[in-house]
Amino acid sequence: MNKKLVFNTLAKIGLIEAALMLLPTAVSIYYHEFSSMRVFLFVILITVVINGLILLLVRPAKDKSITSRDGIAIAALGWIFLSFYGALPYYISGQIPHFMDALFESISGFTTTGSSILANVEALSKGVMFWRCLTHWVGGMGVLVLFVALIPSDKKSSSLQLMRAECPGPTVEKLVPKGRSSAMILYFIYGAMTVIMVIFLLVGGMPLYDSLCHAMGTAGTGGFNVKNAGLGFYHSAYLEGVVTVFMILFGINFNIYYFLIMRKFVGIYKNTELKVYLGTIFVSISVIIYNTMNYGVFHSFGKALRYASFQVGSIMTSTGYATADFDRWPELSKTILIILMFIGACAGSTGGGFKVSRVIILFKTAKRNLRKAMHPKSVNVVKADDRAIDIETVHSVSCYLIIYLLIFFGSLLIVSLNNFDFATNFSSVTACLNNIGPGISQVGPMMNFEPLSDLSKAVLSIDMLLGRLECLPLLMLAAPSMWSKKLY
Amino acid sequence: MNKKLVFNTLAKIGLIEAALMLLPTAVSIYYHEFSSMRVFLFVILITVVINGLILLLVRPAKDKSITSRDGIAIAALGWIFLSFYGALPYYISGQIPHFMDALFESISGFTTTGSSILANVEALSKGVMFWRCLTHWVGGMGVLVLFVALIPSDKKSSSLQLMRAECPGPTVEKLVPKGRSSAMILYFIYGAMTVIMVIFLLVGGMPLYDSLCHAMGTAGTGGFNVKNAGLGFYHSAYLEGVVTVFMILFGINFNIYYFLIMRKFVGIYKNTELKVYLGTIFVSISVIIYNTMNYGVFHSFGKALRYASFQVGSIMTSTGYATADFDRWPELSKTILIILMFIGACAGSTGGGFKVSRVIILFKTAKRNLRKAMHPKSVNVVKADDRAIDIETVHSVSCYLIIYLLIFFGSLLIVSLNNFDFATNFSSVTACLNNIGPGISQVGPMMNFEPLSDLSKAVLSIDMLLGRLECLPLLMLAAPSMWSKKLY
Repeated sequence: MNKKLVFNTLAKIGLIEAALMLLPTAVSIYYHEFSSMRVFLFVILITVVINGLILLLVRPAKDKSITSRDGIAIAALGWIFLSFYGALPYYISGQIPHFMDALFESISGFTTTGSSILANVEALSKGVMFWRCLTHWVGGMGVLVLFVALIPSDKKSSSLQLMRAECPGPTVEKLVPKGRSSAMILYFIYGAMTVIMVIFLLVGGMPLYDSLCHAMGTAGTGGFNVKNAGLGFYHSAYLEGVVTVFMILFGINFNIYYFLIMRKFVGIYKNTELKVYLGTIFVSISVIIYNTMNYGVFHSFGKALRYASFQVGSIMTSTGYATADFDRWPELSKTILIILMFIGACAGSTGGGFKVSRVIILFKTAKRNLRKAMHPKSVNVVKADDRAIDIETVHSVSCYLIIYLLIFFGSLLIVSLNNFDFATNFSSVTACLNNIGPGISQVGPMMNFEPLSDLSKAVLSIDMLLGRLECLPLLMLAAPSMWSKKLY
Repeated sequence: MNKKLVFNTLAKIGLIEAALMLLPTAVSIYYHEFSSMRVFLFVILITVVINGLILLLVRPAKDKSITSRDGIAIAALGWIFLSFYGALPYYISGQIPHFMDALFESISGFTTTGSSILANVEALSKGVMFWRCLTHWVGGMGVLVLFVALIPSDKKSSSLQLMRAECPGPTVEKLVPKGRSSAMILYFIYGAMTVIMVIFLLVGGMPLYDSLCHAMGTAGTGGFNVKNAGLGFYHSAYLEGVVTVFMILFGINFNIYYFLIMRKFVGIYKNTELKVYLGTIFVSISVIIYNTMNYGVFHSFGKALRYASFQVGSIMTSTGYATADFDRWPELSKTILIILMFIGACAGSTGGGFKVSRVIILFKTAKRNLRKAMHPKSVNVVKADDRAIDIETVHSVSCYLIIYLLIFFGSLLIVSLNNFDFATNFSSVTACLNNIGPGISQVGPMMNFEPLSDLSKAVLSIDMLLGRLECLPLLMLAAPSMWSKKLY
């Protein structure tokens, strides 16, 4: 890779993060939290000095544009540095005194996982809490996308390579020919939807600060709690309903919203992923309502609907907010939630997991193969949205599944060293690798990840990054040939 | 498919099963169990009459040979009928009074799973117990292979189609050009190894009847207990050692033994699957010894070695015998055992699971794809044993994984209706789909499957058949076009 270009870009991303930290600084000043303010100013200073120096010293040749390999390196290293700087406010303020915990919380924030090591989130200062939720918002749409949107570049291919390295899903399509415009449109839609959500929450009587934090957490499908009791704190079916609807909306491919704005309704109507996504949510909610009422967890249909729809929306979009202790629900409901964790949200959304479109491709591949085994001489093509999917996409989705499983079982082995029960180990890896947040049992919605060993936290942190960046970039970073200058 | 030919072949297989039942009849006579004897004679009568009638009435055209589709239909239907007839002695003798339980036990026997619904196996009569272990032995090498070995056919392609439909593993190679000779060689090696094992057990002081039952259960990698306390009943490290070694030997591809007899040592030395299989066993045993001693489960190295090697051999080869309650081992050891359940034994052995060779192909595919993502223009080929594996094999292994996962999660959902804990549900599906036997928690080695609902038992029975026949045949049976006469 082109090391100069990569580190130059990384320095710019570091500066963007420093700029973002001005927001929690302002919040700290507003709430007269001057010690938090000083911490943020200090971290901004460190970040600006380090990255400013890199920017001055490392100057890439002007005519080089970012290649596919450079984009991958920038994504992988960028997210690691970002998480490191982001952990400093927690650590230096002393609000999370153990550095591994602070790093875990920071990675959990940026990757929009929402797993926390904090038992008492209300002990955080307003400024630090705001930063924690802001990392969800930035991580959701992506920091490289933000970079592309903010920093003008005269190399068209550069912006596409960066967005491709960060965007979730099997295929990345540009909305408009120019990468920068695509990034700006995405962030515009994202910002507008967040603002609309804040307004809906304010109407329901939620204070402005809480509304902002919840809207950022929902938009990024993150899921950090703002209150110890979660959204249950407000005892409001309206607020829970608003969050439910917006979680589901933020789990949809953002291309759909672009089509909506451009009035290209055919593209929406023909979108298989959207139909399967909404269908799965509907079926899951229905079964869980029936199952929980049957076991007497809820006594009225209204209550069952309220809690089931919230939880299904929260888990499938990988947000991870909890209003009920679903660990106490009957096993069928719990198993449905665990399977939804694996499926995840739509490609091109802020949600995590394996992605609905990949699951569709897997289903169709299986079907095609069964047909082929029966009629060896027939020609069978895997189709989606009436278009044939080329064999390379099918193959790469299969490979993604294989790599995903290898990482899953490897992590499970290491986490099992903690000697917690199987449900805890299994669900903590599931929750982190799919960027969900809470698992079941010892890491259930009313518990936290603090009791795990540092080794487990490190492994789960890597899993969160692998989940957010969809495995490839980080794994490729480990290959020696990635670091050579040779071009292939 | 050619229905006449299929049903004609199925009738012949039914007659072979009736002939096999003469063995437990003889055992019943020897032990003066005349009620058991009468049951077996009655079942033999029913089976002979039904299948004899079919054989007389359904006569296929002479010039037709068995196609790939016919072979698949014969395998799928053959195993279903076989299990049904095989359940009759349990049910009619009243030793398993509930028919779903008897069917579960019969399928568990033929598929060499070894999951049982019996809490007290010692209550079975000697004859019925012998039949139970005999189903393991026949199911291990395969009833279609037995058919091919016994019944002469003038159609070369017929025998290959039948063996291919039943043999485990991604690829089936013929040992010698003629299918019937291959089947006879396989059964000869299988029988000889079983006899050698019986001799080793007799030397250790195990009674002849127990030795025969254990040898058949080990050879088929089945794992039904002969005593309530399992092998622990004999309190003999020697006997456990013999069973450990033979379990591992029966988990090896039988082609290796053929190479051994033919003195083709290069074929053995170059066999990647064998190396990975033995390496995995060695590493797993080492880690479990360290882990269990560390947690104070075992206080001496000798004891840890004895129990760890037995359990690893038993689980990896999908036999499922237990000498220790591994459900009480530390989580890391339990997680290793669960992962070994998924990996399974070598292709072409009597063992179950996903098969070592498939795991190797998945690993290599993942590696190739990572390399390809980094160097898009390079040419990467998946290799095994120094030969390139064609893209269709890679693709079909991926597809097998997909289908396997879909079945796994579907079954998990249905079994979770029992509302047992997650470990029970997860491990019962794992144990049945991989033909292991016991799981953990409520279906752990010292428990049984009786408490599950009939629906769960039915689903797990189908999983056992899917696991033994490697998914495709049974699934294809469900397709309407399978039943049409049209040729593709």
